[in-house]
Amino acid sequence: MSDAPAPVRIGTVLFPGFELLDVHGPLEMFGGLASRGNGYEGGRVEMPMLAERPGAIPSNQGPSTLADTALADAKGLDVLLVPGGWGTRREVDNAAFIDELRRQCGNARFVASVCTGSALLAKAGVLDGLSATTNKRAFGWVASQGPRVNWVAKARWVEDGKFFTSSGVTAGMDMALGLIARMFDRETSVRISQGAEYEWHQDKGWDPFARLNGLA
Amino acid sequence: MSDAPAPVRIGTVLFPGFELLDVHGPLEMFGGLASRGNGYEGGRVEMPMLAERPGAIPSNQGPSTLADTALADAKGLDVLLVPGGWGTRREVDNAAFIDELRRQCGNARFVASVCTGSALLAKAGVLDGLSATTNKRAFGWVASQGPRVNWVAKARWVEDGKFFTSSGVTAGMDMALGLIARMFDRETSVRISQGAEYEWHQDKGWDPFARLNGLA
Repeated sequence: MSDAPAPVRIGTVLFPGFELLDVHGPLEMFGGLASRGNGYEGGRVEMPMLAERPGAIPSNQGPSTLADTALADAKGLDVLLVPGGWGTRREVDNAAFIDELRRQCGNARFVASVCTGSALLAKAGVLDGLSATTNKRAFGWVASQGPRVNWVAKARWVEDGKFFTSSGVTAGMDMALGLIARMFDRETSVRISQGAEYEWHQDKGWDPFARLNGLA
Repeated sequence: MSDAPAPVRIGTVLFPGFELLDVHGPLEMFGGLASRGNGYEGGRVEMPMLAERPGAIPSNQGPSTLADTALADAKGLDVLLVPGGWGTRREVDNAAFIDELRRQCGNARFVASVCTGSALLAKAGVLDGLSATTNKRAFGWVASQGPRVNWVAKARWVEDGKFFTSSGVTAGMDMALGLIARMFDRETSVRISQGAEYEWHQDKGWDPFARLNGLA
């Protein structure tokens, strides 16, 4: 017998060459849900780290993060988090991985991508007919992975149904706080951002990097 | 025979309960040095991940990062990066760890801490007589670890000689860009921040979180 709220389960997809902050920026914010005074007192945040084959997965920057669960074994996810990084250039051609990713997108309550992670979602076809965004330096390549996606050039992040896609790297933190606001409320996101001493860009349309890269 | 510049070596100290973004935010920025067009073309960034005993080290949020090198075996570091997190509350009482940390601070060209990482540096005595800052919610506890340190309440980060100390969590990214500006130049930091679609707080004195926590 327990009055504790159900755990929030954030499953993160790892592959060799994932971008370090695409993963750990959003996980820092989701982790804040369990911190004292952030409104989820007594609750747990579970973070299964997923990969085709569990083990130490090297990032684009070098340091490795441990994957503890096979992607195919993930279940009961509130959020499926898909990072970008140079590894996406290889994984778009990994049919078994893309097939499993498509299946897991169907199972998860929300799906969130950072940076070129949306190229993987586009290749899996799950963004067809939806609006999405991505990294502003890799915009053309990502868009080519999903010709039936409505790619939005100027956006910090885009929400369309259960799919949240963000711009490059640090945009993932703003999107994660936006997703927490959807799952809980805006005040929870503000408290988490303050705990991380982070100036949250709450406006999804804030994006000076689109113009900087000739996209707006 | 090679014309490539010498690698930049960033050594990160891991311990159980390290704060996820304190580590991976700065490493994302340092990693940007090696990205195309960021001014360090052909150069390498090496990131030895250090711990008392190498292996998978669990973060405060859950996910584990792989430590590949014993702290005692680190050498030739341009930057020794010391994160915070709840694990610092235990490590300040780990005399062998603090002794080795003191020795490595002596060897490194620069020492950079994030959040409550400065409590570990203070306990090691290496900040005595210097100015430093830390997380604004844990300010009193951290300050108690170093009574001979000039603790600065309102600062995004503080530079004193080779020691860079930052405020909580995301402040580590701003500090890392500040340290890159010292090691290279400001334009390099601006290019890296733009690549990560990050709005760098270039002003060390920017700190709305001091007042928010009753410190200024």
